[in-house]
Amino acid sequence: MSVSFPFSAIAGQGEMKLAILISAVDPALGGVLVFGDRGTGKSTAVRALAALLPAMRAVEGCRFGCDPAAIAAACEDCRKRRGQGPLKWRRIPVPVVDLPLGATEDRVVGALDLERALTNGVKAFEPGLLARANRGFLYIDEVNLLEDHLVDLLIDVAASGENVVEREGLSVRHPARFVLIGSGNPEEGELRPQLLDRFGLSVEVKTPQDIKTRIEVVRRRDHFDRDPAGFAAKWRGEDRKISKQVALGQKRLASIEIPDGVLETAARLCTILGVDGLRGELTMMRAARALASLEGDEVVTGQHLRKIAAPALRHRLRRNPLDESGSTVRIERAVAEVFGE
Amino acid sequence: MSVSFPFSAIAGQGEMKLAILISAVDPALGGVLVFGDRGTGKSTAVRALAALLPAMRAVEGCRFGCDPAAIAAACEDCRKRRGQGPLKWRRIPVPVVDLPLGATEDRVVGALDLERALTNGVKAFEPGLLARANRGFLYIDEVNLLEDHLVDLLIDVAASGENVVEREGLSVRHPARFVLIGSGNPEEGELRPQLLDRFGLSVEVKTPQDIKTRIEVVRRRDHFDRDPAGFAAKWRGEDRKISKQVALGQKRLASIEIPDGVLETAARLCTILGVDGLRGELTMMRAARALASLEGDEVVTGQHLRKIAAPALRHRLRRNPLDESGSTVRIERAVAEVFGE
Amino acid sequence: MSVSFPFSAIAGQGEMKLAILISAVDPALGGVLVFGDRGTGKSTAVRALAALLPAMRAVEGCRFGCDPAAIAAACEDCRKRRGQGPLKWRRIPVPVVDLPLGATEDRVVGALDLERALTNGVKAFEPGLLARANRGFLYIDEVNLLEDHLVDLLIDVAASGENVVEREGLSVRHPARFVLIGSGNPEEGELRPQLLDRFGLSVEVKTPQDIKTRIEVVRRRDHFDRDPAGFAAKWRGEDRKISKQVALGQKRLASIEIPDGVLETAARLCTILGVDGLRGELTMMRAARALASLEGDEVVTGQHLRKIAAPALRHRLRRNPLDESGSTVRIERAVAEVFGE
Amino acid sequence: MSVSFPFSAIAGQGEMKLAILISAVDPALGGVLVFGDRGTGKSTAVRALAALLPAMRAVEGCRFGCDPAAIAAACEDCRKRRGQGPLKWRRIPVPVVDLPLGATEDRVVGALDLERALTNGVKAFEPGLLARANRGFLYIDEVNLLEDHLVDLLIDVAASGENVVEREGLSVRHPARFVLIGSGNPEEGELRPQLLDRFGLSVEVKTPQDIKTRIEVVRRRDHFDRDPAGFAAKWRGEDRKISKQVALGQKRLASIEIPDGVLETAARLCTILGVDGLRGELTMMRAARALASLEGDEVVTGQHLRKIAAPALRHRLRRNPLDESGSTVRIERAVAEVFGE
Amino acid sequence: MSVSFPFSAIAGQGEMKLAILISAVDPALGGVLVFGDRGTGKSTAVRALAALLPAMRAVEGCRFGCDPAAIAAACEDCRKRRGQGPLKWRRIPVPVVDLPLGATEDRVVGALDLERALTNGVKAFEPGLLARANRGFLYIDEVNLLEDHLVDLLIDVAASGENVVEREGLSVRHPARFVLIGSGNPEEGELRPQLLDRFGLSVEVKTPQDIKTRIEVVRRRDHFDRDPAGFAAKWRGEDRKISKQVALGQKRLASIEIPDGVLETAARLCTILGVDGLRGELTMMRAARALASLEGDEVVTGQHLRKIAAPALRHRLRRNPLDESGSTVRIERAVAEVFGE
Amino acid sequence: MSVSFPFSAIAGQGEMKLAILISAVDPALGGVLVFGDRGTGKSTAVRALAALLPAMRAVEGCRFGCDPAAIAAACEDCRKRRGQGPLKWRRIPVPVVDLPLGATEDRVVGALDLERALTNGVKAFEPGLLARANRGFLYIDEVNLLEDHLVDLLIDVAASGENVVEREGLSVRHPARFVLIGSGNPEEGELRPQLLDRFGLSVEVKTPQDIKTRIEVVRRRDHFDRDPAGFAAKWRGEDRKISKQVALGQKRLASIEIPDGVLETAARLCTILGVDGLRGELTMMRAARALASLEGDEVVTGQHLRKIAAPALRHRLRRNPLDESGSTVRIERAVAEVFGE
Repeated sequence: MSVSFPFSAIAGQGEMKLAILISAVDPALGGVLVFGDRGTGKSTAVRALAALLPAMRAVEGCRFGCDPAAIAAACEDCRKRRGQGPLKWRRIPVPVVDLPLGATEDRVVGALDLERALTNGVKAFEPGLLARANRGFLYIDEVNLLEDHLVDLLIDVAASGENVVEREGLSVRHPARFVLIGSGNPEEGELRPQLLDRFGLSVEVKTPQDIKTRIEVVRRRDHFDRDPAGFAAKWRGEDRKISKQVALGQKRLASIEIPDGVLETAARLCTILGVDGLRGELTMMRAARALASLEGDEVVTGQHLRKIAAPALRHRLRRNPLDESGSTVRIERAVAEVFGE
Repeated sequence: MSVSFPFSAIAGQGEMKLAILISAVDPALGGVLVFGDRGTGKSTAVRALAALLPAMRAVEGCRFGCDPAAIAAACEDCRKRRGQGPLKWRRIPVPVVDLPLGATEDRVVGALDLERALTNGVKAFEPGLLARANRGFLYIDEVNLLEDHLVDLLIDVAASGENVVEREGLSVRHPARFVLIGSGNPEEGELRPQLLDRFGLSVEVKTPQDIKTRIEVVRRRDHFDRDPAGFAAKWRGEDRKISKQVALGQKRLASIEIPDGVLETAARLCTILGVDGLRGELTMMRAARALASLEGDEVVTGQHLRKIAAPALRHRLRRNPLDESGSTVRIERAVAEVFGE
Repeated sequence: MSVSFPFSAIAGQGEMKLAILISAVDPALGGVLVFGDRGTGKSTAVRALAALLPAMRAVEGCRFGCDPAAIAAACEDCRKRRGQGPLKWRRIPVPVVDLPLGATEDRVVGALDLERALTNGVKAFEPGLLARANRGFLYIDEVNLLEDHLVDLLIDVAASGENVVEREGLSVRHPARFVLIGSGNPEEGELRPQLLDRFGLSVEVKTPQDIKTRIEVVRRRDHFDRDPAGFAAKWRGEDRKISKQVALGQKRLASIEIPDGVLETAARLCTILGVDGLRGELTMMRAARALASLEGDEVVTGQHLRKIAAPALRHRLRRNPLDESGSTVRIERAVAEVFGE
Repeated sequence: MSVSFPFSAIAGQGEMKLAILISAVDPALGGVLVFGDRGTGKSTAVRALAALLPAMRAVEGCRFGCDPAAIAAACEDCRKRRGQGPLKWRRIPVPVVDLPLGATEDRVVGALDLERALTNGVKAFEPGLLARANRGFLYIDEVNLLEDHLVDLLIDVAASGENVVEREGLSVRHPARFVLIGSGNPEEGELRPQLLDRFGLSVEVKTPQDIKTRIEVVRRRDHFDRDPAGFAAKWRGEDRKISKQVALGQKRLASIEIPDGVLETAARLCTILGVDGLRGELTMMRAARALASLEGDEVVTGQHLRKIAAPALRHRLRRNPLDESGSTVRIERAVAEVFGE
Repeated sequence: MSVSFPFSAIAGQGEMKLAILISAVDPALGGVLVFGDRGTGKSTAVRALAALLPAMRAVEGCRFGCDPAAIAAACEDCRKRRGQGPLKWRRIPVPVVDLPLGATEDRVVGALDLERALTNGVKAFEPGLLARANRGFLYIDEVNLLEDHLVDLLIDVAASGENVVEREGLSVRHPARFVLIGSGNPEEGELRPQLLDRFGLSVEVKTPQDIKTRIEVVRRRDHFDRDPAGFAAKWRGEDRKISKQVALGQKRLASIEIPDGVLETAARLCTILGVDGLRGELTMMRAARALASLEGDEVVTGQHLRKIAAPALRHRLRRNPLDESGSTVRIERAVAEVFGE
Repeated sequence: MSVSFPFSAIAGQGEMKLAILISAVDPALGGVLVFGDRGTGKSTAVRALAALLPAMRAVEGCRFGCDPAAIAAACEDCRKRRGQGPLKWRRIPVPVVDLPLGATEDRVVGALDLERALTNGVKAFEPGLLARANRGFLYIDEVNLLEDHLVDLLIDVAASGENVVEREGLSVRHPARFVLIGSGNPEEGELRPQLLDRFGLSVEVKTPQDIKTRIEVVRRRDHFDRDPAGFAAKWRGEDRKISKQVALGQKRLASIEIPDGVLETAARLCTILGVDGLRGELTMMRAARALASLEGDEVVTGQHLRKIAAPALRHRLRRNPLDESGSTVRIERAVAEVFGE
């Protein structure tokens, strides 16, 4: 029950905050990868998100927090019970689950419930962190230090939205749809291209260079560390505004229109940049739609596209040995070309 | 029970779709290896296949789904019971089994049933994924990331059609005939030549370069993700047509003729390309026959051979340091030479 | 109950002693990393600290030694009991916990209490060293020889102030706020930049070059080793003075003022030195405040800043290939530049 | 009970087939190592062998299939029971045991029978694959991929004809005399010289270059795969002839004479080729004798020697950096020299 | 109860024998590292030591052999019992404990007493080799072959004089003060500088080059191997003399004086040689004092210092790339400089 | 109970046979290391030895086969029982124990007797192969392939004559005096110098180059393999002669004289060759004495020394980069120098 640093009190770091909000509006976007210098508040932002999100409905007694209004994506149990009558539900906070470094595979995917196995001789499944994260956020700090076999596993589950457990005589599958948020410092360990590609958006955070901002950040942090409750109270109003904006964005999302011209622009951008596959375009379409929805627009425009181009594509570029400028610069140049500047 | 993306709604990627259909017509072909860029729908196509395949007859109560009409290839149990009278059967969907990365060897090959061992003191065998995949499809996403010992095991079983388990005091063998479908990105990990050779066909998939196709793919994917049931309904008719074509192809297969001239052409192709062993020719013969059957022809012709030459041989070429053009180009050149163009 | 070498009897090594005292005044500073030659009394100083610290109040019966006056940071149990009435407390010495090389992860983070699990079938948590170190000091001799997975774990806990245990079916979190004191010889094993950054202060210790000091150190050590009690009695008065100074420093800390000019100077120093992130400035602010408090000043000045600049920044500099002078020299040069000398 | 491809239906590959037949006539020869291109029917030939071999007498109830007529080489149990009266026997097929890649050491050498250990508290030995292969064939496909510790173990047992198990408190030894047949592709993994030396004969198989043969091979394989029973029936007569020839060869073997001149020729061949040790000559002597017996001759001649020189010596040559021609060519040259051509 | 080779019968190897005797006089010196050629009697000398040492008083029933006259350094149990009245004691031989290569960590540090845990459900501590070595000698033959984690552990315990066990739910600390004697051949495995530094003294042993000595050594060894008891009887008188000298040296030790001039000389020697830290000087002071005591002198002089300079410093020198002469030569040169020769 | 190849039927290989006989006369010599080409009968000779050795007296019921006439070297049990009266004994064959590759450490050193531990709750020791080999021979084929930790263990035990087991709560020591016989091919894996040095003698075996000998060897081997009993009977007389010679050699051994001149010669030889330590001379003395005893001489002469110089020293030479001739040649040259030729 510890108080988090308020989302609205984070100074600067606009791109990161926008990416996280967009992901909250459309969880199917594939999550956010935050990378950059040490000590720039990467983890603070994610932890701040928890306090912002509107509570959600979950089937009473369901271990996976299934949505009573989306029975097709629910677990086997809920689907069965639904056949026998309407499901009871309650409101629960959107889960934000930490995946601590060093968590065992058992704890992540779930395992045989040894207690019941030994006592009752029953092979029961004890859900893991992936189950707990269903419909919420799974946060991995230092994602580049995660063990390879866990990375493989997360990629698999994040792609399918389902956790398939085939071991110790168990054969279980349950929904595991979550927004994956990873943070890491590329200098401390490479991320496999395969994992990179699974993240919808990526943002870079840097140390602010402006002295005033630096003092402000340090003051706020010190204030919060010494008086968390008082500091949180001061920013509560700002946080509530953002919370409402996200809730509205989620509702509006299904009705946002995307003209073909916008998709063509996205495709041209990806072609110029030589992005493999079509995941780049798909992500741009969805991110632009979520952005429009968050900003209250009904139709996606080129401006939405421009704003999310870098976060959507930055981590999907091949290293081009003939063009040494960084990914962000290459995207900006392609954007300028496509938008005729 | 989640809805798959309809097979017929996959835009482009003709070679991949053809290879998968041919494998469905003749499961003995050795499966399909799909490789190429990320995000090109490799796994989508395989998962789509499940919904297309006609249901099959299986012996009632058999854990391996043995075919009541092919008792010679059945498990020991079925063969015994058959000796005592006719076997009951029921229709079951053709299994499409995922082999998740991280599955343990126990779960793949089967293991001692610990529950029964501890309770009744009986050494019973608990079948694994190989048993479940019998007579169906075994799908391995990212096959190049699979652990070596599992690869060895799969090669062994795929070659013999039998799963031999010799451990923990168990000594079991059961039929495990399945079409192996692997997908992978060669940039993320080499495939051993040995494993390559076991796949009957191989296809490359690429990102479509045509803007219209790209927009169409993105639109369809987005539509499906947001309304799976509605999207599936729209394509049901197309899918049914393909389903019937496969069923007819399977029935006709045994009666298709192959003139010696066709086999000679296949042998010449393999000699020119320096393919080791005769698996290349054997595969070409079978793939051409399956293609003829799928297309409703009674006799295999050179044209069938040409169409399947690349998928059948591409992954069997030795790297030739003096001829740097890619495998596909080398095959095309050899085809042109053999067919006198 | 063995007698420690008295803190005040440590000859020389002023910077190390100051850093340790500052950390005692503000435990939130992030601990001290002591590195340098073998045989320079690194571990002696830390062990000496234990005898100096004023006893603290702890909730009666709490396994984590929670502070009855800071219920927000207390464990779940204490927070519950507090709801039912005022909490009893007793005075306990500030814990100084050794983390021995070779300690298992179980013992560090805590584990399932096997005894109770087997006897009563209850999944109880048995606290580990992190629990015992709460509100005190965790000392790791030869921190650079610690196994990587323990380092990851300590970084995680030190940053969050919470120990999150997710294994063996346990899901426990408890407060684990401690001052991390590490000692090591960089020649015997690198420290990861990530771990370096988590330490608030770092100090270098060297072999004294002055013959008189050397004889004095050797004499004192020999005296202590041969008659610990007699030697300790001789220095008791000096130790008590320091103890009082620390206690006063702790009380005053909350009321020390920090003018914006001081923070600006800190920011300029960090910018000149190219320190990543803002942890450098945050640490300087806090270390300067703790120093002022320890010295009885009410307002932080540039002089406080100068004194703690090297310990606060030394381990945060990037290796600069064009400027080969050591970290300490680079900081001194930047200090001179900023303070206009 | 699946039907094997008939031995006589194997097209070409004369050297491999001869080596296997010779090994069947004199099992003490040390087995056959078959290596060469993928897809050349290496494993087919070995599996075909099983159907050819005449049934043998085995002591009733003996777990190692001991020969009632060779009590000196029998297991302890049989030797004891023989002391108490004549032994009952029955005819059993010559075992052909597969050693699957991935088999555990337990399963290979045998292990403590856990079931009986737990139930009756008795330390009983549960025989493994080596026990089952006694007096028959042990087949290892891809022998070069076998784990090193299993290779060591097999070498040990193959050399001594006894399986010595010293573990888990067991101390068991039982006869394990078998013909080791290994197949492998040297391009996929080296064979240790030590293992090479243990094989009596080695043969290379290559892809046939003649178009007609290729078509014939492909046709036969396809026929067999589609109608195993029909195909086997067609070749039954041919197979029976070979079976009789082997049986006669086995009976005649003890009476075949070997003139000293033949042994001298063998010794000269080995000296010219610089073969280490005398295993080369011993193998040549035995292989020539077995060949003479198979062919119905009573005295071994130089012609028998010539025919088996390459299979007996090919894998025993040291790499000679000054003579780059392959092993087979070097042997042919030495044969020509010795036989004065 | 096997007879050891008598200490006094060791021919030559004076430096080694002196170092071992000095360590017996002052066990706090840090032990002796003996290194050199194979077959020079390194282990013989240490094993011989056991027979020489005067028996010591130990608290009756104490598992750690605590000294009834030094209660402050005793175990918790003894300290408690002492509070309840005077402690009973008996004389026991000074323990000389072998640490065999391959000993598990459990056996070295002690472990949970499984027998009592399973029978009575009590978590009792079963002391290990470190407990048994308390107040005596711990001998490690081939110390450079010891596993790293055991080396870390020994360093830790040797430095603190306490064995801290934190595992399997145990939390035990007991005194473990012992003289560490290691032997090894540097050609067969490096010693970590860290471990080197923990040894008080180091001596090199070499094969004697004088023919007469060689014959004498061989004769004595052969005599001993063929008639241990007779040989031991012959040298008993000599051994007793040494035993008395050690006992007297121990008693006198506390009263030996060390003039400041001697310490200054030691400091100058260390400065010239660039020894890190002050452990070199501390060791010289103590070794010189123990030597004076052994030799019956009341005041330490420069001559004592000279005699122990090489054993005390040899293993503490940094490799100096500009001065290639060996450690011993460098020390001799520095000694000559300091003593003005 | 299988028949061994008779010792006397081994053609050639005189040096190897002599070394093995000498070791049988004086088991304290340190065993024999046999190395050389594959297929030269290395293991045959050792296995042949078993049949030759005269039976020995062992204490009735002793698990270590203690000698009733050498109580000082007996196990604790025997020493206790001896105190209570005279010990019963019986004659047992000298044990020749194989240490199979892959034997676990448990089986080699002995382990907790799990059966009794679980049934009676008693911690009993179950002796291993080292116990069984006591007073006999421990044979390791392919000693250079043995796992390192087993090598360490064997070195330790071979040197001390005692097996010290400190694990699983056991603390056992028992006599383990055996002649270590190792065979190996240096081309297949290096032997550590440390292990080399522990072997008393070393012999090289080579393929005979003489055609007649080769034919004889091959004939004998073939005869033996086809009719072991008949072949053994033919050589029984020769074997008995050798057996008697060994028994006489053992009895005479204690009374053989060694003049100082002989030892001086040995020392000069070792000095010239630069052998480390004195184990070379000790071994020469003992080997020459055993040889004299075997040959019926009462005094050791230079001629005995010459005959055993190569086997005693060959494996103790340092590689000399300036003198590239092999070890044997270097020894011969030194022998010529010393004996003035």
